[in-house]
Amino acid sequence: MSSPSAPLQESYHAQHSPFGAFASFTCGLVDSPGGFGQALRAPAKQNLYIGFKRASDAKWQLLPFLTPPKSQEGAFTGDTTVVQPPRGFDSLRPTGYTRTLGWASDTWRAADERFGFSLLSPFGEVPDPAKMKRAAARFHLAPLVNGWIEFDNRAGRAPVELVFGVGVGDDTLRPLADTAPALAGFASGRAFGYATKPGRGVALKQGFDILSPKFLDYRGLHVIAGESALVFTVPAGQRKRFPLVLGFYTAGPVTAGLTADYAFTRFFRDLEDVLAHGLAEFSRYERLAAQRDRELARSKLDADQKFLIAQATHSYLGSTELLWHKGKPLWVVNEGEYRMVNTFDLTVDHLFFELEWQPWAVRDTLDLFVRRYSYRDQHGLSFTHDMGVNNFFTPPGRSSYECDNQEGCFSHMTMEQLLNWVLCACTYAAHTGDRAWLRANRKILLACADSLLRRDDPDPAKRDGLPKRDSDRVGHGAEITTYDSLDVSLGQARNNLYLSVKALGAWVLLERTFATLGLKSDSATARATADLLARTLATKFEETTGFFPAVFEKNNRSRILPAVEGFVYPLFLGYTDATAPTGRFAPLFARLHQHLDQALRPGVCLDGTTGGWKMSSTSTNTWFSKIAIAQHVVRSLFPSALNDTARAADRVHANWQRTPGCGKDAMCDQIRSDSGEACGSRYYPRGVTACLWLRE
Amino acid sequence: MSSPSAPLQESYHAQHSPFGAFASFTCGLVDSPGGFGQALRAPAKQNLYIGFKRASDAKWQLLPFLTPPKSQEGAFTGDTTVVQPPRGFDSLRPTGYTRTLGWASDTWRAADERFGFSLLSPFGEVPDPAKMKRAAARFHLAPLVNGWIEFDNRAGRAPVELVFGVGVGDDTLRPLADTAPALAGFASGRAFGYATKPGRGVALKQGFDILSPKFLDYRGLHVIAGESALVFTVPAGQRKRFPLVLGFYTAGPVTAGLTADYAFTRFFRDLEDVLAHGLAEFSRYERLAAQRDRELARSKLDADQKFLIAQATHSYLGSTELLWHKGKPLWVVNEGEYRMVNTFDLTVDHLFFELEWQPWAVRDTLDLFVRRYSYRDQHGLSFTHDMGVNNFFTPPGRSSYECDNQEGCFSHMTMEQLLNWVLCACTYAAHTGDRAWLRANRKILLACADSLLRRDDPDPAKRDGLPKRDSDRVGHGAEITTYDSLDVSLGQARNNLYLSVKALGAWVLLERTFATLGLKSDSATARATADLLARTLATKFEETTGFFPAVFEKNNRSRILPAVEGFVYPLFLGYTDATAPTGRFAPLFARLHQHLDQALRPGVCLDGTTGGWKMSSTSTNTWFSKIAIAQHVVRSLFPSALNDTARAADRVHANWQRTPGCGKDAMCDQIRSDSGEACGSRYYPRGVTACLWLRE
Repeated sequence: MSSPSAPLQESYHAQHSPFGAFASFTCGLVDSPGGFGQALRAPAKQNLYIGFKRASDAKWQLLPFLTPPKSQEGAFTGDTTVVQPPRGFDSLRPTGYTRTLGWASDTWRAADERFGFSLLSPFGEVPDPAKMKRAAARFHLAPLVNGWIEFDNRAGRAPVELVFGVGVGDDTLRPLADTAPALAGFASGRAFGYATKPGRGVALKQGFDILSPKFLDYRGLHVIAGESALVFTVPAGQRKRFPLVLGFYTAGPVTAGLTADYAFTRFFRDLEDVLAHGLAEFSRYERLAAQRDRELARSKLDADQKFLIAQATHSYLGSTELLWHKGKPLWVVNEGEYRMVNTFDLTVDHLFFELEWQPWAVRDTLDLFVRRYSYRDQHGLSFTHDMGVNNFFTPPGRSSYECDNQEGCFSHMTMEQLLNWVLCACTYAAHTGDRAWLRANRKILLACADSLLRRDDPDPAKRDGLPKRDSDRVGHGAEITTYDSLDVSLGQARNNLYLSVKALGAWVLLERTFATLGLKSDSATARATADLLARTLATKFEETTGFFPAVFEKNNRSRILPAVEGFVYPLFLGYTDATAPTGRFAPLFARLHQHLDQALRPGVCLDGTTGGWKMSSTSTNTWFSKIAIAQHVVRSLFPSALNDTARAADRVHANWQRTPGCGKDAMCDQIRSDSGEACGSRYYPRGVTACLWLRE
Repeated sequence: MSSPSAPLQESYHAQHSPFGAFASFTCGLVDSPGGFGQALRAPAKQNLYIGFKRASDAKWQLLPFLTPPKSQEGAFTGDTTVVQPPRGFDSLRPTGYTRTLGWASDTWRAADERFGFSLLSPFGEVPDPAKMKRAAARFHLAPLVNGWIEFDNRAGRAPVELVFGVGVGDDTLRPLADTAPALAGFASGRAFGYATKPGRGVALKQGFDILSPKFLDYRGLHVIAGESALVFTVPAGQRKRFPLVLGFYTAGPVTAGLTADYAFTRFFRDLEDVLAHGLAEFSRYERLAAQRDRELARSKLDADQKFLIAQATHSYLGSTELLWHKGKPLWVVNEGEYRMVNTFDLTVDHLFFELEWQPWAVRDTLDLFVRRYSYRDQHGLSFTHDMGVNNFFTPPGRSSYECDNQEGCFSHMTMEQLLNWVLCACTYAAHTGDRAWLRANRKILLACADSLLRRDDPDPAKRDGLPKRDSDRVGHGAEITTYDSLDVSLGQARNNLYLSVKALGAWVLLERTFATLGLKSDSATARATADLLARTLATKFEETTGFFPAVFEKNNRSRILPAVEGFVYPLFLGYTDATAPTGRFAPLFARLHQHLDQALRPGVCLDGTTGGWKMSSTSTNTWFSKIAIAQHVVRSLFPSALNDTARAADRVHANWQRTPGCGKDAMCDQIRSDSGEACGSRYYPRGVTACLWLRE
């Protein structure tokens, strides 16, 4: 197991994203472009010109966020011998600057801290958009990211220039002053743009070679060129910080199946309106970002954990999309590079974050699952894996992902999604105290409980609590779990340790929820089922090995960490009777403790090469979002299972995300535990489960 | 000079484009993707699956319109060892099929003509959109392309399958039946899609591997995959042709500076509406395309000339964009890969085509030049080079292209654009007989004439008819012409042969136009100026060499073909007194004849290697659109200047466009005369000047 002592060279993209705009300004990966992207599955590819030039600098000093653009000049002049611009800059090396990722900020410093550039993606409690007043909506739903660029030239004897620019290569940008005189900056069509306040010390540049444009029109620009920039001058003896606003806009319907517009279009006329608002409210956004940064900084987590939470939150926000459909808000989280719409496996993991900041999102998503994405098979009610893909809402009762007659990836997840609805619903209701909603969903919860029972066995006399009946939707295939792309230890739904413990969590929550609803008999059934399930689970423990098998079939001997994932829900809700080692599930807990004790060892569920946590002993595919939940449950409920290596893994996980193996696609979830390279689930929101750590 | 006798292997893209939608379905280049693109500067990059599979075929036989897509399957499964799809097809080689480009069609045949695939881009006379009735608007402005796929299986003993499919790689498509049950096909978001009528023998496919998808959902699709297709079955003993409609849609404002929507959004609700309309009106569109095809086929032009006209018209339509701004139509032709808005240099060349099919477009563009894109310098009135770029309308009086203090490319074109307004206005008014418009523009025309005179010399006594005064807009630079990227022989506006003859054309037209307006004295001045200019021009002839110099300065000795371009306007209008060799300009004509006689020789204005026409003897950069005008003028007015080599060059020019040097970007205009490789002006509308040949 390598624990590199040489300083790691950070190189990773972060998504700087508004709330609910399915938009990101992505940057940070060394020697790579990035920039504005809306509804993309990966970082954009715009060159970013960000840096400074002191009198003593022969060339501009730019952060390494560009690749040399192919000049468009030759296309006009027919001369292909033109030197490729831009010329005249040094690309700063990572040793030449520092980067600090906060919960809601990302700041680069260079030139002995005198140069600073920061992007802010403030987030906070967002009120229910169905009831939001216009002013609040403009504040919370503005599709923009804030930033600033500064130089401390107090000791300088000559002015210093700063640049913030974007090159769209084959495309062009337009000066914003033509449509909004109060904005200095550029826009790409009507879709995105950046601006500062016009004034002394602020100049615009546009040309094929942005640092020394050869062709200048009457106002010193060249609007047929794809490279643009703001150039700021900081006089000698002064320290100046210039605000930046990066905005997005898309008018009109953006989805099909259900036809919806972005919610922000109700409150903003166009891109110019967004940018002007961002400048007007700049300090309010700055304060909000600072508040979040402070909260994370002051937590008792270590630097690696804080980094993981910050990076995960950035990517989560980039996948959020608040739509407006038939006069009502429609909440979507897109599934990172896959862009599936409200994948239920993710909803259940985003639950903890969303209950903190926008609980209505959980409620609305559950409602839409009931209204449009529920179905009944031979056992009863369940829900689809997702609601569509890439802004396309699939027909009622159908997901974009699930196929028939499959044993592995792309099969149905009927049991998993049924549990997800129950867990989300009960957790939402208990956490928010929303009794009205709970009462309105009484019948659904009862139907879910019935469906759960029947997926154990249709005959009550034969039940042992374990979910084991596949849906007839699978045809001649088999149900899978969210862990579909790992090995069979986690992929198969039937008689699955992970899913059984998750079912246990569901029954614990149902017991409480039914009691709240005054459904005493159903509450008692839930309690009894939980107890039965816990007892049955305990019998699956292999006394000889001290492990649980991952699947209670076919002599499976995989060892998995999600054995305890199901406890995160009662843990979150503070149901201590269900989570105390000495509580009602004490026998099961003791065995799980032994399981974890042994699993958290190198070569089992700690990777033998890197020391990173592995979901399964028999797969090198591990998922950060699920590691984060496992860590939270283990640290909270089974702390003595943690040895030093297991504890040290936060550094390993953080380094995976800090280096290009994951970092080239911002937050990644599916990672090879032996190399730290992402193997799926890139540009992904799910890592926000790490925010559970703030509760430890 | 090589005149290859080996059969040339055709490989070129063609733009299949609706009228005014700034949209193309591009395909045809061998082993290259293409597909749907809106507002793009180059072909799209979608894989196209078009072909057939007989019982005797082990694999699908596909036209070579794809590159192997990177499977997205691995991104989901985490398994990067998956074989890259699609598998199971042979890519037809060009020897295995034929392609016939008609004026409004493009047809591929294979399997002894039994397989057929055709794309139709019907065009015709489009009534003034300001007065168009809804039904006419839906017919003329529908943003769609028609097509069909067929197989003659009358001799077959087993069914034959046909495929038409599109793969969007990183993106996804959605089955149209979800939103429009009467459509069988797929859409990418709300932006583009393709459909046929649902029915027997029509099936949908969607998957990572489109030819043998591994994962199928409840309806046999997999909507998270980016590859989609329609599969048709032709039973044994039958010949079946299936209609195809390829549609585009963009809602809401698409431009800035002037905010405008696509005109088609007024008449079509969404993409589904467009596609359903295309199927409903299929035979009417088919008839219109057939009519155009017949007209071109029956012309007395040779096959190469017909090909050039057909290919040029396809690309012209792809650049057209009819917008709606403040309750009125707003006509735009985008400048190919540069996407400049209504570049005046192109307007004057598109004039002849547009007067035939949509004369209101010329009128509206002239009006917008007056209203927003005119200005006055020290000499008087003129017009900007263009109205903006990439859907951005520049501020009043300013183009996107023109910069200050330049001697070459990107300088101002004040004189050129002044002539362009005069020539377009007079030609429009004379050709259409639109007296009301002419009267409304009386003052503008008078101001233009005055401005023209003053650009000769402010002092009437010093005038010799030659334009020679640069605008003060150029600063310490110099005015240029549309031929900016050639050498100085055509680039410099001052004392320029090309521009002087163009001015001669303008004075000839002004004489007539002022007479029509009853402005006798102005007409007489115009006539006198034309005569003076013709006399002065004659004095520039070098008796020793038998040539005109391209520029009457600095001992220039370049020889240029656009020496006669200015005569195309009186020729078009049938002003025979000005175009007869023995007419009023006989002395000038005799000298121009000698000039052309000598210029149309290898090593002068015929390329020594290829035999292609060169605009200038001192540049290998030549422009097809301008060759076409020169050919028309020479063949019409100076036919005896044509030797066999000059005459044979249509084959050379056609072969340039038929092979990848130009063909990879559909119609190209700026071409290296020694290699046939495009060096600028790709995906370009201007070649439509070739339609002048239909008048010969």
